[in-house]
Amino acid sequence: MTKLIKKPNETKEKLIRAGTAILTEQGFASTGIDSILKQVKVPKGSFYYYFESKEDFGISIIKYYAQYFAKKLDQSLLNTDLSPLARIYDFYKHATLGMKKYQFRRGCLVGNLGQEITMLPDSFRSLLIETLNDWQYKMATCLKEAQKNEELAKHINCEELAEFFWIGWEGAVMRAKLMKNEQPLTLFIKQFLPSHTFM
Amino acid sequence: MTKLIKKPNETKEKLIRAGTAILTEQGFASTGIDSILKQVKVPKGSFYYYFESKEDFGISIIKYYAQYFAKKLDQSLLNTDLSPLARIYDFYKHATLGMKKYQFRRGCLVGNLGQEITMLPDSFRSLLIETLNDWQYKMATCLKEAQKNEELAKHINCEELAEFFWIGWEGAVMRAKLMKNEQPLTLFIKQFLPSHTFM
Repeated sequence: MTKLIKKPNETKEKLIRAGTAILTEQGFASTGIDSILKQVKVPKGSFYYYFESKEDFGISIIKYYAQYFAKKLDQSLLNTDLSPLARIYDFYKHATLGMKKYQFRRGCLVGNLGQEITMLPDSFRSLLIETLNDWQYKMATCLKEAQKNEELAKHINCEELAEFFWIGWEGAVMRAKLMKNEQPLTLFIKQFLPSHTFM
Repeated sequence: MTKLIKKPNETKEKLIRAGTAILTEQGFASTGIDSILKQVKVPKGSFYYYFESKEDFGISIIKYYAQYFAKKLDQSLLNTDLSPLARIYDFYKHATLGMKKYQFRRGCLVGNLGQEITMLPDSFRSLLIETLNDWQYKMATCLKEAQKNEELAKHINCEELAEFFWIGWEGAVMRAKLMKNEQPLTLFIKQFLPSHTFM
């Protein structure tokens, strides 16, 4: 019987997950709460029970996505069965499959919100920067392991290279959405891995 | 007296210019025609005299921006007073000044629309791809001159490198908007120019 009793957090999570899926496809400013509520069949009153405002909802979504994506990154970048650079390639492979699964309609939530940042609540900016910094830290750590492993030249600044990676990766995800295929992701990783790291 | 008579095209151009400025800051889906009309003080009837629909207006804006940006690119990439790679650096310097001028609120219209492509009319997709291809062609031509000039290794595929440039550049512009400073643009060009081309 207990299985039938919905926990209050279940509805909250359902809302966050639905909001996350929508915001990987489209912008925050143009997304109405009503369309999300309709999709998950939750009345407006319940929404305001869990979230103070649309801004509050957006913050929960960014935090949820940041954690979800960090876990995905770790699955590749901490996989010690692979060499450090092969882990980056592994991340690319999984990310490409993830985009394929949704016919390249869904991109990166952080990239989408970053693009429309001038229209968004101020609280989003620092949260998005913090999220990118976290992913960059993970990438820089992997690149430093590549240096130890002699896959990457010692003189390279891994923090800067990690930032370069995310700048380019966000651009590649955006272009893959535009082209509706994986070619931009493949071109990016092919240029990034050999020219910067295999030397 | 003739100076006082407004040509019909003047209003059309005014609308396109205002629309362009707005769409470098924010998305198409969330931008209402009314707010643009209010800004340029043009009645709604006049808008529909010049444009069949919001989609038609969007197409005119993309075409206008594509031409405007291509001219800016040519000013740097065809400047024979500079070496081919110095021309790319010159483009970066001008683009950075352009973003600074608007406190990093305005980014690339093609990047903005590319990010929200799943919500936009189908006609936009091919036009945005075409525009990026044009910019890539200009960049590839400059990179080939760099090869002739022995600034760039002969084995490098200039078309692929030009595509890599635009993928990363769009990512850098987006990040500069997010950070509200030029650091991502500088980091990108610093990584792009030496590691891919100075060898």
